[in-house]
Amino acid sequence: MRNIRLVLEYDGTRFFGFQKQKRARTIQREIQKALFRILRERVSVIPASRTDSGVHARGQIVNFKTRSGIPLPNIRRALNSYLPEDLAVRKISLAPGNFHARYHAKRKRYCYRLLTGSDRRPLERFYAAHCSFPLDVPLMQKAARRLVGRKDFRSFQAHSEGEKSTVRTLYRSEVRKKGQFLHFVFEGDGFLYNMVRNIVGTLLLVGRGKISLADFDRILEARDRRQAGPTAPPQGLVLEKVSYA
Amino acid sequence: MRNIRLVLEYDGTRFFGFQKQKRARTIQREIQKALFRILRERVSVIPASRTDSGVHARGQIVNFKTRSGIPLPNIRRALNSYLPEDLAVRKISLAPGNFHARYHAKRKRYCYRLLTGSDRRPLERFYAAHCSFPLDVPLMQKAARRLVGRKDFRSFQAHSEGEKSTVRTLYRSEVRKKGQFLHFVFEGDGFLYNMVRNIVGTLLLVGRGKISLADFDRILEARDRRQAGPTAPPQGLVLEKVSYA
Repeated sequence: MRNIRLVLEYDGTRFFGFQKQKRARTIQREIQKALFRILRERVSVIPASRTDSGVHARGQIVNFKTRSGIPLPNIRRALNSYLPEDLAVRKISLAPGNFHARYHAKRKRYCYRLLTGSDRRPLERFYAAHCSFPLDVPLMQKAARRLVGRKDFRSFQAHSEGEKSTVRTLYRSEVRKKGQFLHFVFEGDGFLYNMVRNIVGTLLLVGRGKISLADFDRILEARDRRQAGPTAPPQGLVLEKVSYA
Repeated sequence: MRNIRLVLEYDGTRFFGFQKQKRARTIQREIQKALFRILRERVSVIPASRTDSGVHARGQIVNFKTRSGIPLPNIRRALNSYLPEDLAVRKISLAPGNFHARYHAKRKRYCYRLLTGSDRRPLERFYAAHCSFPLDVPLMQKAARRLVGRKDFRSFQAHSEGEKSTVRTLYRSEVRKKGQFLHFVFEGDGFLYNMVRNIVGTLLLVGRGKISLADFDRILEARDRRQAGPTAPPQGLVLEKVSYA
């Protein structure tokens, strides 16, 4: 059995997220379907991150096991010809037998792109969210920096997933101004369900002056989703990179 | 009568170009339809450049005349709420009575974005063309520079438009490497129909080693469309800017 690792890029707009669901067009379904055509074998594709409906990826990592002996470059080429235009393989490699894309991930980097100002921008609509309210960017930058470190992020988790730990370490949490855009960059050892989008939604409340820095601190401490802001829309979010060392 | 000038951004993917045609979804049709709802008046919208089917714009300029006295900010707001999501007004201003978006344009800048390398890139598919052949970029840069100046570009015109002059001046014609992408930037006092895409298609022949620099020079001198390369696909092309001074 070979354990094969892929780097994937996808446009999440027309996918119902990563994970296979009955009848829904998901990334997992499309890849497993293409792999079946190539390997004549049903494989189970494990992602580093189960991205949500509408969320994009430039560096999603997956692995799967196969008995097939087809050379890797041929699998890659065949995948890229069978996969739909909104999903592609950027790299393929042989992984150690025990490699698990999710369990072994050490770091993930997400970038959330937000268009500011009153203008709609048609060329950006699929790959950035839009906020037309004036924003206090330095205050948002301050708030974002408070999230760096080992913290309990329960307040930013979409829904309780039982007794599992909600403690994660963020190595990077920043807001960068790029012309008319803000880039929210988060790097951490793991992320709770909807965590990035809930953090962005809450940082926007800070930026709009709806809540203070002290409120932001209290939200983090509260460990209660109801305290935090709304979930920012998915089209701004890209899973940029997953590291294993 | 006021003469009103707009800066438009649009995603050309789902438009059949700028110019109104029976039953086809065009930019002109959508704007004139929205303006009719706002002004209750049929207006004729004149563009700086009649972009083709599938071509994008970040800085298209148009003008139209109206008897309506509705304040400009209100027209802009109403347009942006009535126009479809792939078309928006970025600026609105009052122009001199004789201002004509096409006749008075002094300079236009186009950028053509090309993805190189063997990878398909799903997140770029609507806004870049893709060439997976290896390219000699320095040679393409040399060829591109030969187009700067006042020249007869008849070889790069899609089809003859009668006896009209095919002489244009290019102020800028360059190929820039940006990571995995090439940006072809052209700035000139005017462009013939399909000229940018035909130049890019011919520069790609140079880059792939199909024709030499001397061949490229001969193509320009031939003043014959049949000598030049194929028309590069539209999704790479963006009308970036139009200047009037």
